[in-house]
Amino acid sequence: MTNLHHASTMARRRIAALTGPLSAFNTADAVEYLNGLKQPDAALVLANVPLERAVKILEQPELKHAGRIFARLPLEQAAGMLVEMADDRATDIFNELDESEREHLLPLLATNTRLVIQKLMRYPANTAGSLMTTEFASVPADWTVAQALSYLREVERTRETIYAIYVMDPVTRQLEQMVTLRRLITGNPDDSILSVAQVNTPVTVGPLVDQEEVARLIRRHDLLSIPVVDTDHYVLGIVTVDDILDTLIEESTEDVQKFGGMEALDKPYMQIGFSQMLKKRAGWLSVLFLGEMLTASAMQHYDEELAKTVVLALFIPLIMSSGGNSGSQATSLLIRALALGELKLHDWWRVALRELPTGVTLGAILGALAVIRIVVWQKTGLYDYGPYWVLLAVTIAVTLIGIVSFGSMAGSMLPFIMKKLGFDPASASAPFVATLVDVSGLVIYFSIAAWILGGTML
Amino acid sequence: MTNLHHASTMARRRIAALTGPLSAFNTADAVEYLNGLKQPDAALVLANVPLERAVKILEQPELKHAGRIFARLPLEQAAGMLVEMADDRATDIFNELDESEREHLLPLLATNTRLVIQKLMRYPANTAGSLMTTEFASVPADWTVAQALSYLREVERTRETIYAIYVMDPVTRQLEQMVTLRRLITGNPDDSILSVAQVNTPVTVGPLVDQEEVARLIRRHDLLSIPVVDTDHYVLGIVTVDDILDTLIEESTEDVQKFGGMEALDKPYMQIGFSQMLKKRAGWLSVLFLGEMLTASAMQHYDEELAKTVVLALFIPLIMSSGGNSGSQATSLLIRALALGELKLHDWWRVALRELPTGVTLGAILGALAVIRIVVWQKTGLYDYGPYWVLLAVTIAVTLIGIVSFGSMAGSMLPFIMKKLGFDPASASAPFVATLVDVSGLVIYFSIAAWILGGTML
Repeated sequence: MTNLHHASTMARRRIAALTGPLSAFNTADAVEYLNGLKQPDAALVLANVPLERAVKILEQPELKHAGRIFARLPLEQAAGMLVEMADDRATDIFNELDESEREHLLPLLATNTRLVIQKLMRYPANTAGSLMTTEFASVPADWTVAQALSYLREVERTRETIYAIYVMDPVTRQLEQMVTLRRLITGNPDDSILSVAQVNTPVTVGPLVDQEEVARLIRRHDLLSIPVVDTDHYVLGIVTVDDILDTLIEESTEDVQKFGGMEALDKPYMQIGFSQMLKKRAGWLSVLFLGEMLTASAMQHYDEELAKTVVLALFIPLIMSSGGNSGSQATSLLIRALALGELKLHDWWRVALRELPTGVTLGAILGALAVIRIVVWQKTGLYDYGPYWVLLAVTIAVTLIGIVSFGSMAGSMLPFIMKKLGFDPASASAPFVATLVDVSGLVIYFSIAAWILGGTML
Repeated sequence: MTNLHHASTMARRRIAALTGPLSAFNTADAVEYLNGLKQPDAALVLANVPLERAVKILEQPELKHAGRIFARLPLEQAAGMLVEMADDRATDIFNELDESEREHLLPLLATNTRLVIQKLMRYPANTAGSLMTTEFASVPADWTVAQALSYLREVERTRETIYAIYVMDPVTRQLEQMVTLRRLITGNPDDSILSVAQVNTPVTVGPLVDQEEVARLIRRHDLLSIPVVDTDHYVLGIVTVDDILDTLIEESTEDVQKFGGMEALDKPYMQIGFSQMLKKRAGWLSVLFLGEMLTASAMQHYDEELAKTVVLALFIPLIMSSGGNSGSQATSLLIRALALGELKLHDWWRVALRELPTGVTLGAILGALAVIRIVVWQKTGLYDYGPYWVLLAVTIAVTLIGIVSFGSMAGSMLPFIMKKLGFDPASASAPFVATLVDVSGLVIYFSIAAWILGGTML
């Protein structure tokens, strides 16, 4: 037995060992299995399962490092998979390749696949165009139900969905109507396809519409797919509900991360490198830190008052955090209300009119708790707040009303201001609101203290 | 013309004026139009449009106060609509009625509708059972493709979806296979329905499975619907993707609100009454306030140090907020990673191993900024931090490293602890983390100050 022969036996055994478990897996399980393998092994598996299976696995957005694995496949095989793949996913994977890998692949692709991928790659990320597939079912408006059905049977394998069939003007090819497959099968075979079409004109989006708006429309009209049309009402592609599900999950992850005060990650937690993670977090953390430095400046401004009555300093963290917390509550409410379209920009004054009394009441509740605390500590001798402890308690209570009202107002208005300035309202993060309220909170605290305690403690 | 006649003419005019605009609207637009009307007017409209239209409108979860509007409909008409409605939505509306309204309606319902509604009402909220519809398509496994198709044509109108057809054992009625309509129409009419069935056994859920898990499975397997089965593998109903879209939106709203430090609202912002809004916010705000009172206790403990060196107090807000901010970042990351199943409970130590160096580095960055600030202010004469300003700068920098590391660790571990204790990891809100870090942060600050400044400033 030669060494070479031995090596190839080893390789065959290795392939068999790697591909073996797959036979018992459905596609989702297979993806999870590949996610657990090293990239060269994952590529080895894909290269050694039937083409149809490999394509199905590569089509799952849950497959991690799909581009990297794909780049390790033999070139001819990779090209064959790309041609068979749903074109929106093929474009995603193509996007993950580097320039030289793309250049090697392109000449091997069927012309049609190449043109579609090149077209789809031109749409910016997070738009309808970037999400859409060109593999939809369409028929001319002068066809019968039977003609449409027999056509669908033929193309079923190559379409991402055939549950929505788009009916085009036979001459201009403009979108006219939509037929669902469920209505189509109930139609009389010899009748026009229009006999089972929806009464309303189809809901459409332009290719540059944001994915959040696409999600909103799909949800609003309970669609399984939505056609993407150009200005001439010619269908460029469709966005399907499964892509929208993935989009929604992604968006809400981004929203929570932004609300947490960092740049949104574009990958799962464990897949982000150390330096990339630092970059995503250090930026906002530093900006917030620089903003928060204003608190040191504010405190420096009041250092004489502080030196006179250290007791004032004791309540600074308590007071400031209350403003931040109430602000963070209000911001979380408004971010979602704006994202869901429950409120529009011009509703800001209605919100302000609600938040002001809410803030005052919440502040009064916290103020009462603070007064109880001071009285109990003073009376039981746990701590001596000095001869003017009653006035101090009043100062803290009034300050809390002021700061919690300010926090609620600032927190609720910030998402509106963000939106007005063209930013994502979700960028109004909890730490951002807290920082904003901290600085103003100190000024409110010392002003109220000077007013109430002037002449006694100060 | 009698007064009565006049009144009825007025009423007819009013109805015509109210229902008039509807003719130009699709269902989603009609819902929006009704949402803009007063409840009695909305009921008047529903009572005066064709039954099929009224049912379609009532089936939209976007219709606000659907239960209240429904309660204003003439009883007979209301019962008729309930029978025609998709049963999951009928149950939702029925749930919104009060006891006496339900009692009046029940006798008027068809037996089947009554039984289904009573059955669906028994499932707890947010479970597969509470989301499911019983109006799905199923056929026995011994049918042919042609038989199935002709059956589907017949029942199409009364099923929420016929895109997934569940194939049952002809004797036991247990779920055997799933056939998609797209594959079914490609089948040979005389072949068994099993010839076009999916190879893998269908993915199913139990009726008590949480809606988040249902969403995860639908997304993972790119399904349009998922069957809900009992322990005998008998299909109780199906959950469709449009319900899951609504669920996901709802869940992410709740997550953001909880992360913002409040109880999740169950209604849009503008629909919540003042006292209800207070209740949702005051609870957590008070709990956080009581927790934050520990900062006052900590500061009281260090009041002698504070009296000696007021300059230490100047940096308290800056230092504390940095800990809170880094904690809030880490929490937002981990909440989502846990929600998406990217990380499991037992991964906590892998996260801790990543967060520690991340926190130290982030703290060092902020520490450097703080040192620059102190040096610049001191050297330019903007503020005099006293003779020991170099030691003070070192104290602040070391404290920041300590606090930001602690914040990142605490913020990342808290969601794990929540999950371990059986709570929703999303309850680890930004204000909660901030409060936790604030108290410990003060202790860290004063301990480091005592260590570095002991004998000089302290």
